[in-house]
Amino acid sequence: MINISVIGYGYWGPNLVRNFSGTDGVHLVSVCDKDPESLKRVAKAYNNGIATTTNITSVLTSPDIDAIAIATPVYTHYEIAKKALENGKHVFVEKPFTSTVAQAEELVELADRKNLTIMVDHTFLFTGAVRKIKELISDGVLGNLYYFDSTRVNLGLFQHDVNVIWDLAPHDFSIMDYVVEEKPVAVAATGAAHFNGKENIAYVTVYFPNNMIAHFNVNWTSPVKLRSTLIGGDKKMLVWNDLESDEKIKIYDKGVEVVTQESIYDLLVSYRSGDVWVPKVNPLEALKVEADYFVDCVTNNNKTPINDGMAGLRVVKILEATDKSLKNRGETIEL
Amino acid sequence: MINISVIGYGYWGPNLVRNFSGTDGVHLVSVCDKDPESLKRVAKAYNNGIATTTNITSVLTSPDIDAIAIATPVYTHYEIAKKALENGKHVFVEKPFTSTVAQAEELVELADRKNLTIMVDHTFLFTGAVRKIKELISDGVLGNLYYFDSTRVNLGLFQHDVNVIWDLAPHDFSIMDYVVEEKPVAVAATGAAHFNGKENIAYVTVYFPNNMIAHFNVNWTSPVKLRSTLIGGDKKMLVWNDLESDEKIKIYDKGVEVVTQESIYDLLVSYRSGDVWVPKVNPLEALKVEADYFVDCVTNNNKTPINDGMAGLRVVKILEATDKSLKNRGETIEL
Amino acid sequence: MINISVIGYGYWGPNLVRNFSGTDGVHLVSVCDKDPESLKRVAKAYNNGIATTTNITSVLTSPDIDAIAIATPVYTHYEIAKKALENGKHVFVEKPFTSTVAQAEELVELADRKNLTIMVDHTFLFTGAVRKIKELISDGVLGNLYYFDSTRVNLGLFQHDVNVIWDLAPHDFSIMDYVVEEKPVAVAATGAAHFNGKENIAYVTVYFPNNMIAHFNVNWTSPVKLRSTLIGGDKKMLVWNDLESDEKIKIYDKGVEVVTQESIYDLLVSYRSGDVWVPKVNPLEALKVEADYFVDCVTNNNKTPINDGMAGLRVVKILEATDKSLKNRGETIEL
Amino acid sequence: MINISVIGYGYWGPNLVRNFSGTDGVHLVSVCDKDPESLKRVAKAYNNGIATTTNITSVLTSPDIDAIAIATPVYTHYEIAKKALENGKHVFVEKPFTSTVAQAEELVELADRKNLTIMVDHTFLFTGAVRKIKELISDGVLGNLYYFDSTRVNLGLFQHDVNVIWDLAPHDFSIMDYVVEEKPVAVAATGAAHFNGKENIAYVTVYFPNNMIAHFNVNWTSPVKLRSTLIGGDKKMLVWNDLESDEKIKIYDKGVEVVTQESIYDLLVSYRSGDVWVPKVNPLEALKVEADYFVDCVTNNNKTPINDGMAGLRVVKILEATDKSLKNRGETIEL
Repeated sequence: MINISVIGYGYWGPNLVRNFSGTDGVHLVSVCDKDPESLKRVAKAYNNGIATTTNITSVLTSPDIDAIAIATPVYTHYEIAKKALENGKHVFVEKPFTSTVAQAEELVELADRKNLTIMVDHTFLFTGAVRKIKELISDGVLGNLYYFDSTRVNLGLFQHDVNVIWDLAPHDFSIMDYVVEEKPVAVAATGAAHFNGKENIAYVTVYFPNNMIAHFNVNWTSPVKLRSTLIGGDKKMLVWNDLESDEKIKIYDKGVEVVTQESIYDLLVSYRSGDVWVPKVNPLEALKVEADYFVDCVTNNNKTPINDGMAGLRVVKILEATDKSLKNRGETIEL
Repeated sequence: MINISVIGYGYWGPNLVRNFSGTDGVHLVSVCDKDPESLKRVAKAYNNGIATTTNITSVLTSPDIDAIAIATPVYTHYEIAKKALENGKHVFVEKPFTSTVAQAEELVELADRKNLTIMVDHTFLFTGAVRKIKELISDGVLGNLYYFDSTRVNLGLFQHDVNVIWDLAPHDFSIMDYVVEEKPVAVAATGAAHFNGKENIAYVTVYFPNNMIAHFNVNWTSPVKLRSTLIGGDKKMLVWNDLESDEKIKIYDKGVEVVTQESIYDLLVSYRSGDVWVPKVNPLEALKVEADYFVDCVTNNNKTPINDGMAGLRVVKILEATDKSLKNRGETIEL
Repeated sequence: MINISVIGYGYWGPNLVRNFSGTDGVHLVSVCDKDPESLKRVAKAYNNGIATTTNITSVLTSPDIDAIAIATPVYTHYEIAKKALENGKHVFVEKPFTSTVAQAEELVELADRKNLTIMVDHTFLFTGAVRKIKELISDGVLGNLYYFDSTRVNLGLFQHDVNVIWDLAPHDFSIMDYVVEEKPVAVAATGAAHFNGKENIAYVTVYFPNNMIAHFNVNWTSPVKLRSTLIGGDKKMLVWNDLESDEKIKIYDKGVEVVTQESIYDLLVSYRSGDVWVPKVNPLEALKVEADYFVDCVTNNNKTPINDGMAGLRVVKILEATDKSLKNRGETIEL
Repeated sequence: MINISVIGYGYWGPNLVRNFSGTDGVHLVSVCDKDPESLKRVAKAYNNGIATTTNITSVLTSPDIDAIAIATPVYTHYEIAKKALENGKHVFVEKPFTSTVAQAEELVELADRKNLTIMVDHTFLFTGAVRKIKELISDGVLGNLYYFDSTRVNLGLFQHDVNVIWDLAPHDFSIMDYVVEEKPVAVAATGAAHFNGKENIAYVTVYFPNNMIAHFNVNWTSPVKLRSTLIGGDKKMLVWNDLESDEKIKIYDKGVEVVTQESIYDLLVSYRSGDVWVPKVNPLEALKVEADYFVDCVTNNNKTPINDGMAGLRVVKILEATDKSLKNRGETIEL
């Protein structure tokens, strides 16, 4: 039985509390938030069944707590996680992992030294859809990848301390990091800020070796909500529309082949257009699967979950590069 | 009555022939193509009712022809159009106008000197949808524009002599040129070439003054066909899905307002989400409307159609800038 | 403050408990179910904050309970509701109201005599979508109605004691009863039973005076889930797609006019096809709105809510007529 | 080489002319219409390449004509086809075949006696989609059929001499006749007429042996165009959406199984919900395939095409039964 405390009961914290409280092998010791109003919401929803506190230090230093789940603003992750690790506690932390690469590296090193598990909440890795995509790519169904093209746009919710890339793209960067075997080599980002100096619309290109390219369209000011990813391979192509209730993933038996090519004017291109296949995907709530996995990793001393500190660090590296690229109007930044 | 000859009977030429042959005020004198097989197709479709020839010089120099419609590969546009203008003929030419800015400038200057009309076939400007969008923006319905975000992807058809930007993006560049009143100031492009050294997937960012941004996602290797454009303004937002048969344009009474902003942490953002309105758009075939307009411009000595040589030149300027940006891995190119 | 007890914690009961427990002006006294396993689920979800019992008689006769919410199988509604009313308690009861017209009439009469409120859980009447449709029809926006055409199909869930009409169509009958001002005059039903002698697929036509017609397509064995209603009027037409997350209702400025008609061969018909309008609808949870309304009706002694016993009775009348029609292979049954 | 004349150049005639004129093995001798304005449209579209006439008798009696294609109003089919057969000509005739069962029977008998081919233009049988459905059912992929549920609704076009069933449902009746192996035993129809005494909205139930049921929703006054058919079998289920450009047919590995059934209250139902498969369907124009087939049948003396006079007769039998049922307010009519 692992004793967990959740810190932060704002937008995402309630989901952590609900899932960890219902997970076997976990005792949810307390919920901590600096705002007493948030804690009143805990009391109401759980009929006073869960202890609450505004004293974060008592939580981070309590000898009775084995693990901390952090759902606070990004800029506070480093300090809270560091103190938790120093006090011998495993850490489950919201994405993005930290505000800087240096912070992430320090936390990874610290956890390694203290023999503790860090798990970054890359929730999408635990959805049936991403699991299926990972499987299809690993099994070679798509063949060699040409591109990964993601669109994640909607109206709001503005974050105040980060731009739209730091808010929305970590989902997609973590998915790309998980399903694509090659590692990215360079990043270019363009965007515009219409409200408070933080970009509310942005476009990120990520270059891979072997000519694969990834692209991310993120926008807080779109009138429609879109959540789609196209992945093109030399064998098959895939569309993932996360807003579809039943048919999230479609695999197209489509492709292009260069039949002969003496010169570009003699290029003979052939198209293949066959059946479409819509695999059934596991409909379980991702956060529930992830909570079970966290408990399993901590219990069985697994220090390298698929969403460990290194995975979190890789995502922060791309994020930091987009900042630099945006400042230099789209300059390509080597990773 | 204007005497017109169509040069080029490949992919698009048959549409020009069909529309010009059915247009009042036009006499379609002949169709010219260097491939006799193409001319046999003309004969069959029109029961030998239209004269055909492989002799382009005879067409370009014939004193009986008032105007030439050019539907040949891009790299031949300049030479054919130049000879047509030198021989006193008005020119209707496929997009993109020319292969280089210098060629476009020379043709514009030549037409001006010879007092002739150049019309570049920016067909979309004659669709009911784009007409409606132009009207909505001009009337201030959307307010000041934040962004113009276009996706135009499908499987094939590969062009052999140009990349996917030169093939697909001229549609969107010409639409942007028509509906957005400001003129772009810089361009950045990223992309990848998986087959013949020409990019088959590319992303273009176009910067405007006043912080407006435009973005174009073009792809010849997508398993699905997408044709959509999001336009965000500070009053309303618009989605144009050209694959919808009936409801192509939706106008969203949605928006974001910064209510107060002492610091970024005190930023208070308010969202407005009201009704959606789907205006009826004119369903006439765009090329028919454009053919009528060409005849009207030539007949009434209108040298500056909305899609004149200058419009064609502005599109080629952006295209040339994307080439330069792609070569320098996404470097921003001032226009 | 009204003291309520919920009877039945199976499929729908948890929703009643969640909503009544969160409603101001209500004290949720207890949850009653004959299955102790169900009561354990109550305890877990609410941390033992709500009393539970298997003793229904004690609930129905308790002097401390003002109102009973019934979420048990249809065939038990009559007996439970009757006892509740006899003991002076207001009744909130799942749809369909009762198994027979006679039962419904008796309960209505009993409530009337005892001066108590019966509310039948026609949940859809409390959705933003149905409220908006009611408003549009009442305001004459659609004009005189031609038809009401509903499709409600999906895979499962089979009910064991009733056919698909009794399971799914009460939703649509209650919506029709609410939004259409005229009252139906006759019913015809066809269908087929492939599993247990109860129809799993059925089609119901309902005739109105003035030539209006309604039709209902219900199916437990459809591979896809559909929830759509078309309503045609002589001024405008409406499509309600309840599976759309944002654009549930579309109002079409479309119509048909008979311009002249000397004989059927001289009939000249004109079509009007204008804009489409998608009104914003209230996104509140319907059951929450309904729970508030129940409390309000009980508190303020309103004996005739929009979904009172008479509304429930009208729906049961149509249901009983479909049974008779099905038995006589589609014979039209006068209401 | 078969000499064909097309009679009737109204709504559908131009499609017959275009396809027969482009078919190998056919010489399109002439087009006949009583309206000289229609014949002017022929002349314009084909540059006077096709002979035209208003003299139907000369066409029907000409010794130089082998086959007649009839695209005139339904009520004229019988007389024209009869005269054509009597003059030894093969007949291609628009759906529905005739206005009455008696007429159809007479024509079938006459063709048989004269050893001539009748082909009724059940165009949908020649689409890739219906061919694929036929194949799937014949191969047992769907298993035993439970239901066939079709929706074909749109705004207009009103026919003046027939109701919406006679106009739209022949498509669906002919498709059902082709893909379902059992033959229907009874028909019930309901509907309403809001304009000229002919039903503009109607619902038809068709009963089969073995408990299979078919249903047809046809409507000329729908604000949206819908063309979809659900077919449920005990092995798999299928949805055909003819308005989809690429993914017209989806096959669902979904089903229901009754696991145990002691009484209806002990019924244990199990649901299977697996992958979806979207087979590629042949995109050729159906009417072109059908024209080739007609030429092939005539040339090779095939008297029983899949859409022969008997197929046309079976469709007219259902149509006649719907008339009788509508007159008797939904009474079930045995076939």
